[in-house]
Amino acid sequence: MNAWTGRLHTEYRHLLARANDDHKVQAIVVSGKGRGFCVGGDSEALQGHSARGGYDPGTAEDIARPGYGTAEEFDAAFAYHFGLQKVVVAAINGPAAGVGLALPCFADIRFAVPGVKFTTAHGKLNLPAEYGLSWMLPKVVGLGRANDLLLTSRVFTSDEAYQLGFVNALFEPESLMSETYAYVQNMISTVSPNSLRQTRWQIYRDLHRDVASSVIESETLLNQMMGEPDYAEGISAFVEKRAPDWPSLK
Amino acid sequence: MNAWTGRLHTEYRHLLARANDDHKVQAIVVSGKGRGFCVGGDSEALQGHSARGGYDPGTAEDIARPGYGTAEEFDAAFAYHFGLQKVVVAAINGPAAGVGLALPCFADIRFAVPGVKFTTAHGKLNLPAEYGLSWMLPKVVGLGRANDLLLTSRVFTSDEAYQLGFVNALFEPESLMSETYAYVQNMISTVSPNSLRQTRWQIYRDLHRDVASSVIESETLLNQMMGEPDYAEGISAFVEKRAPDWPSLK
Amino acid sequence: MNAWTGRLHTEYRHLLARANDDHKVQAIVVSGKGRGFCVGGDSEALQGHSARGGYDPGTAEDIARPGYGTAEEFDAAFAYHFGLQKVVVAAINGPAAGVGLALPCFADIRFAVPGVKFTTAHGKLNLPAEYGLSWMLPKVVGLGRANDLLLTSRVFTSDEAYQLGFVNALFEPESLMSETYAYVQNMISTVSPNSLRQTRWQIYRDLHRDVASSVIESETLLNQMMGEPDYAEGISAFVEKRAPDWPSLK
Repeated sequence: MNAWTGRLHTEYRHLLARANDDHKVQAIVVSGKGRGFCVGGDSEALQGHSARGGYDPGTAEDIARPGYGTAEEFDAAFAYHFGLQKVVVAAINGPAAGVGLALPCFADIRFAVPGVKFTTAHGKLNLPAEYGLSWMLPKVVGLGRANDLLLTSRVFTSDEAYQLGFVNALFEPESLMSETYAYVQNMISTVSPNSLRQTRWQIYRDLHRDVASSVIESETLLNQMMGEPDYAEGISAFVEKRAPDWPSLK
Repeated sequence: MNAWTGRLHTEYRHLLARANDDHKVQAIVVSGKGRGFCVGGDSEALQGHSARGGYDPGTAEDIARPGYGTAEEFDAAFAYHFGLQKVVVAAINGPAAGVGLALPCFADIRFAVPGVKFTTAHGKLNLPAEYGLSWMLPKVVGLGRANDLLLTSRVFTSDEAYQLGFVNALFEPESLMSETYAYVQNMISTVSPNSLRQTRWQIYRDLHRDVASSVIESETLLNQMMGEPDYAEGISAFVEKRAPDWPSLK
Repeated sequence: MNAWTGRLHTEYRHLLARANDDHKVQAIVVSGKGRGFCVGGDSEALQGHSARGGYDPGTAEDIARPGYGTAEEFDAAFAYHFGLQKVVVAAINGPAAGVGLALPCFADIRFAVPGVKFTTAHGKLNLPAEYGLSWMLPKVVGLGRANDLLLTSRVFTSDEAYQLGFVNALFEPESLMSETYAYVQNMISTVSPNSLRQTRWQIYRDLHRDVASSVIESETLLNQMMGEPDYAEGISAFVEKRAPDWPSLK
């Protein structure tokens, strides 16, 4: 069930950094191996923290830092997803709990299979809401419904999550990955790479700034991006009613 | 389809400033002429920006500045709607794209006809999210659903927009304007002008400040507004179970 | 119908402070006596404010200050609920208007009986949105729908409030209190006291800070709380698949 360990965290960040830096990668899909997505810390490790009297993340000092440096307010665990250059889509194939629920919270888009169980989990272990779950959930599902999920640590299904707007769409297990890839493929073939990058950063910065600053930056970006070859190609494709062939990808 | 041009922008702001300053105008309704609401920039102008290598808004220096000066954080294109003295209702009679979708985003209330197509549009032209769309949409429909609309630039219908809470109500084309006017008429006859003005400003300022500051300002306003003749009239009308006849409008 | 008076406000805060300080109290349930929840100021008092030309809250200087001092941004009327040490659940048994609607807005969880009428009410009396209603509603039901409720002061039912996510669940009048107590009982027996306390504060602080600060505080809390006896008990109960018996409550 892909328990969250220092090793998994280290490898995840290493792979994320590689995908973020690789010019040939246009989007990132995160899913779980086997029947689960990620159920949080494993019970052995959790008991170890108790014996030790504190939390040991089990990660080395030289862990990769994907997405860091884009904006000061994104520079923390999991929040670094906001700083990535590429869209992240979570394909939630099985149960997600605790850290395993926080992770897809920081994806841009979430798909899931029906009938899967989610829980914030932390309350039953005398823990705080983990890694920004309490920051993200109210912005995704509204404050009233987020309070219920965060305070009770109750189990909720992916179906309820879909109704609440936490999950963007539900797909049967056999089609989850093909539907996810089809969504991503359509997105990266119709939307330019720089538009995806800048739109993500606008969205997450906009959660941290006033409306005038947001508008003024959009005007600056508009002026810059109209000078890029992908803009000319986008216009031509639009006028000629054909798919774009982005120069920036050649 | 009411393409967004420098001339349209100039005239829109001029009319908005006049309506905002005219004591006889109590609310502002924005709709599109003909079959469309507003489909954003026209393709000829978009090609011109490409040839020029940057964006030319096509507006003069002396363009009207409706709503500016109310709060520093509202002083930018489109965001100035927040600073207006009067309620703005968008009656979306046809397709809305790009800037044409950003504009009704800054209205207080949105009505639309069923089956109309909306799109953020920008991604297919290598553009950023335009004029604060990335700031507003997550606050209206939630972060997860806004991400999908902003990152894919996909077409969504007014029916989906209604389900998401972006549109307040759907009306058939033949009744859109009459229903919109009936809503506005009911609002301005039952709610006092200063309450509408202050409530709008409270809502939009509250998106920029802490909860204690919001409460404390509401207490100051409560004390001030209880000293106004419209308060005495509101109480009398309430006690006598009749419609109010606001002194401030005489 | 439990009109909001200086005396009611004074007693409410006194009782809230006592419940907050009493180690034996684990959660707070707020409901209305009789057929109503709270319909705001009574008309006699409202007329008195008019004669006086301003608002007199009718509360003494030495009024209790429950929840004050937790965070500067919570230190104001009603917003002080955020600073309490314990979960607050509103059981809305009848009509709620004006201040009577603002109060449950500041509860963590809201239950209501079906078919009950709510209204922000202020607009019809030439008043501003009261006590942070304009700050809270957009965060609970989304900006577009909140605008409609705040600007028109129209009546909406608890059923609509449930669909909008303002009310977490609807219960018939005869079972409202038993269902509310069952929810609370389940919450306080499965979630540790410090987790409830810290999660509440995380949620409300997170509405005031950047995502990195939220994550970093969650890491500090994680480390601290893993050193508490309730963590060891939570792990044991989880591994042994039994209900926890929190040491902190002994």
